Amino acid sequence: MSISTRINHIALVVDDPEVALRFWRDGLGLALECTEAVPEQAAEVSFLPLGESHVELVRPTTADSGLAKYLAKRGPGMHHVCVEVDDVGAMLERLKAGGFRLIDESPRVRANGTRYAFIHPEATSGVLVELYESAR
Amino acid sequence: MSISTRINHIALVVDDPEVALRFWRDGLGLALECTEAVPEQAAEVSFLPLGESHVELVRPTTADSGLAKYLAKRGPGMHHVCVEVDDVGAMLERLKAGGFRLIDESPRVRANGTRYAFIHPEATSGVLVELYESAR
Repeated sequence: MSISTRINHIALVVDDPEVALRFWRDGLGLALECTEAVPEQAAEVSFLPLGESHVELVRPTTADSGLAKYLAKRGPGMHHVCVEVDDVGAMLERLKAGGFRLIDESPRVRANGTRYAFIHPEATSGVLVELYESAR
Repeated sequence: MSISTRINHIALVVDDPEVALRFWRDGLGLALECTEAVPEQAAEVSFLPLGESHVELVRPTTADSGLAKYLAKRGPGMHHVCVEVDDVGAMLERLKAGGFRLIDESPRVRANGTRYAFIHPEATSGVLVELYESAR
């Protein structure tokens, strides 16, 4: 069976990363590792390591993405929790067999080879959960 | 200066821990370490280790606590993110000096000696953040 190994990241959706960095970098003292454009998500993401996890600050770069609408409706805040697993495909099969509501029925693949999938908040008690499997 | 070392836990507020455990334990495969009454928070908390962090499922045990009202208003979901630091008092001083809005101006202490404090979501881009310092 697939094993859940750690919190890979928590993701906050923000309208102004500089405002968010004032707390997470300047206040809490985390390092800003990098800021990257993620065109397939229509977003720009800042990565701040925290132990074996990261805090990710996600800024929508278009007004019509799901992320942009989420931000417009709720304001800045938590967007999702990402749990690293050793096999996203196996975990999705297991969750499907358990009757859990998924957003992605099979793994999606990022440009860097990372496999991931999202689980519907209805299945998790209200939290959008991303599963994440590092490229080998 | 105080150092932030890891995500100590993420806390979900839930009305029925058995429903939440169906996903986090039975689905995702996390172990249920223990379930404890936390009378000072009018809550019962289930702890599930995940790497160097925990997932905490928090069920309000009275109807009139802040937590119970939060649950009644928003339904189950993310409640806060807890960041472990090596010195909560020093971090609070640093955040105060930076003009960040705090909920606790000085560290609070749990029965087990853990020092903690909450930071207002207004300061953090929309997430309730707990600072946490292990008892020595």
